[in-house]
Amino acid sequence: MTLYQKLAKRLREHIQHDFYKPGDKLPSVRQLAQEHGVSISTVQEAYRQLEQELLVEAKPKSGYFVCQQKKDNLPSVSRPPQRPLEVSQWEEVLNMLMNRSNQKGVQLQHAMPDMKAPTLKPLLKTLSDLAKQKPELGLSYSDIRGREELRTQLCRLAVASGCQLHPDDLVVTSGCQEAISVCLRAVTEPGDIIAIESPSFYGSMQAIKAANLKAMEIPTHPETGMSIEALELALDQWPIKAIFVTPTCNNPMGYTMPEEKKERLYKLAQSYDIAIIEDDIYGDISFQFPRPKTIKSFDNDGRVLLCSSFSKTIAPGMRVGWIAPGRYRDKVTHIKYVSSSMCPVFPQLAIAKFIRLGGYTKHIRQIRQHYEKQRDHLLNAIKAYLPSDTRVSFPDGSFILWVELNPNIDSMKLLEKCRAEGVSFAPGPLFSATGKFRNCFRLNFSEQSLEKREWAIKVLAKIITDFNVEKNK
Amino acid sequence: MTLYQKLAKRLREHIQHDFYKPGDKLPSVRQLAQEHGVSISTVQEAYRQLEQELLVEAKPKSGYFVCQQKKDNLPSVSRPPQRPLEVSQWEEVLNMLMNRSNQKGVQLQHAMPDMKAPTLKPLLKTLSDLAKQKPELGLSYSDIRGREELRTQLCRLAVASGCQLHPDDLVVTSGCQEAISVCLRAVTEPGDIIAIESPSFYGSMQAIKAANLKAMEIPTHPETGMSIEALELALDQWPIKAIFVTPTCNNPMGYTMPEEKKERLYKLAQSYDIAIIEDDIYGDISFQFPRPKTIKSFDNDGRVLLCSSFSKTIAPGMRVGWIAPGRYRDKVTHIKYVSSSMCPVFPQLAIAKFIRLGGYTKHIRQIRQHYEKQRDHLLNAIKAYLPSDTRVSFPDGSFILWVELNPNIDSMKLLEKCRAEGVSFAPGPLFSATGKFRNCFRLNFSEQSLEKREWAIKVLAKIITDFNVEKNK
Repeated sequence: MTLYQKLAKRLREHIQHDFYKPGDKLPSVRQLAQEHGVSISTVQEAYRQLEQELLVEAKPKSGYFVCQQKKDNLPSVSRPPQRPLEVSQWEEVLNMLMNRSNQKGVQLQHAMPDMKAPTLKPLLKTLSDLAKQKPELGLSYSDIRGREELRTQLCRLAVASGCQLHPDDLVVTSGCQEAISVCLRAVTEPGDIIAIESPSFYGSMQAIKAANLKAMEIPTHPETGMSIEALELALDQWPIKAIFVTPTCNNPMGYTMPEEKKERLYKLAQSYDIAIIEDDIYGDISFQFPRPKTIKSFDNDGRVLLCSSFSKTIAPGMRVGWIAPGRYRDKVTHIKYVSSSMCPVFPQLAIAKFIRLGGYTKHIRQIRQHYEKQRDHLLNAIKAYLPSDTRVSFPDGSFILWVELNPNIDSMKLLEKCRAEGVSFAPGPLFSATGKFRNCFRLNFSEQSLEKREWAIKVLAKIITDFNVEKNK
Repeated sequence: MTLYQKLAKRLREHIQHDFYKPGDKLPSVRQLAQEHGVSISTVQEAYRQLEQELLVEAKPKSGYFVCQQKKDNLPSVSRPPQRPLEVSQWEEVLNMLMNRSNQKGVQLQHAMPDMKAPTLKPLLKTLSDLAKQKPELGLSYSDIRGREELRTQLCRLAVASGCQLHPDDLVVTSGCQEAISVCLRAVTEPGDIIAIESPSFYGSMQAIKAANLKAMEIPTHPETGMSIEALELALDQWPIKAIFVTPTCNNPMGYTMPEEKKERLYKLAQSYDIAIIEDDIYGDISFQFPRPKTIKSFDNDGRVLLCSSFSKTIAPGMRVGWIAPGRYRDKVTHIKYVSSSMCPVFPQLAIAKFIRLGGYTKHIRQIRQHYEKQRDHLLNAIKAYLPSDTRVSFPDGSFILWVELNPNIDSMKLLEKCRAEGVSFAPGPLFSATGKFRNCFRLNFSEQSLEKREWAIKVLAKIITDFNVEKNK
């Protein structure tokens, strides 16, 4: 046992025996180093280990704390069908998308960030200044790979997730949806099979459907993501062409795959010589600090296509996403060009400046803390009001969580009744290729006031109780 | 022979015998009606007939004029290979696109509109006001079909091209490139064959390539477009799934398919039960007034997918296009959603207001006249400086024309030499699925000053002469 492992073991025991209680501040790195006569980096390594175990969490400028929530009621490990299947559910997705405009009531269904943050003001100012002072920039064609100013800043940001990129390694897209859609088309042929997490974001699954691919859903653990063992079995059995994963702050489950598992996933893809499309859209709003590494950070042969955007960190209306396509750059550039030609210039320039002047980092630091508080509040409300057999994810980033109800309850029917009362959520079947997860749904905790959200959870609780009463009649 | 045909015959003879010379004003409708004792509508019908024959042209608020240019040196009718082929030329297209940023010299290669027009000012003002006063509108998600304000105004505009549309019949896209790409994917399966004009715009051909389709190039007449007879033969011989055409102000040839031919094309598609994707991107800047009808205007069973955008009429940087997808609406909505989710809001709202307050119509009226003058100037320069065996298109709209040189001359080699002198154009092979049209190229007449453009044509002339001298050594 190494020094840091020993230290980690001791701290773990202290936490498990309630010497340090949930929410408590832990000793500082310097303090522990002195106490135990070890180096600063040993203590840091020990804390890193405990962070990965989700026992402690770092808060910027405050130090380490014992994690607030105990995760004893996580959703089950998913058990999807063991064969590639076509994606269905478009009608249901469309129905939900069209419902966006109807803004009455408490909308917990869309993964929309908090866009009222005062830290966004400098960005908005730049945007309106650009439109006023340099309208000609907004009129003409630009580089099809995106503005170099932005690509340069994206490379700066990528360092935090362990990536060394060059501006030429990037292609700017119209949001992450275009990034994913382009990457899918770049690495597959129609009819191919693609491995995905179960559950998975409906936008990517619909892109899989539109690209005429089949989805092989892989069992997924609510704390650590896609099962590597199950993936390996599937790779042995089926001619899988690529893996699509959202390993950091997963949508809808909120988990972050531990770093060593990310590396194993990469090596597995390498041994089967297939591509990985990695969706990192929530990566920057992880509650861990520094933010988790991407799978892309392990990529030494260009097989990982990293997709992301500012839709969750800044605002979806910006429509600024990007791809780090590795060895698939030429194909990706081609498909991006035919898909929608180049992207609008103003949002690119405004975001580039926002990052360059430090506004983005400041915004992320604040919004991350805000979301973490919102998460705890929503988890408490769920614990207080929903039935005791409710299971719920413990997102360590993002602003969405996943609720698993008693298998008796159909979330589609539940949604119908909730909508009538002015409450809405994203029903589970949208996140499955074949309409599974009927007793699950996704909630956001970004938008509404605490009071409204608590009210919505009470409404939900009441409707679930009525459901059960009806069932038992 | 009907009354209007008799009148048209008489006027035609007068023009052919130089009683009215090119550029002359013709008698007013009222005057002719009195003179010949016929109704106003009979005279209008006669003029309409002569307009279609391209003998006369209407100028808004001024009346009818004899067409300026005699079209005795049009490019040849194209003779593409008589079988479906895969599209190549991506490298060459990319090379040209990447060259955009290098703005030195005289760039005649890109189909970029004149964006310095003072009539665009109200639009730019609205854009910067929106960014300043309602930043929140630019942040959040919007209707995936596009803002209703814009779709309503698009329906108003469509009336001019003979279409009765409802806002629900439209889907807003990220420019015409996305519109075309989405439509291709909505009406075909990978491996299908699609009939196209020869030459065709490289952007649509690359979309055909990316959708894994084969292109069946159909012989195309430089004045009236795709040969209906050749198309019918191809439809008999091959399982063609859809027809892609740019029948109004074609890119690169500039022709407008006569109305009755458009109707025949529609009926042919109907009898083979296939779809038509109609690209109308230059339709509003036709030099005819009222603007020509679309094929969509004949569509009574929803098989025409009309694609357009404001990239040529306002500015490409707006990235606002749209589709009137007819019976394919649901599929188109799905593919648009997966392709890039919804479009940015500000440009949509700004353009909607620009149309609603009459700014768009005013802008179009002025820019159309401007382009027509530029065309005549460029045609004169070509006649004055390029070799006498040069053939050139006679665009009746848009701001691009097509030049066919002596078959000895390779436009790719020519381009290399021209670039070294600071002059560039779009070489012919880009407009063919298989690199044909080597002795052709496309020029724009939108951007540069008259002097610069004339200088560029002189440079071109000099290099062509040197080419010939070298050949004859």
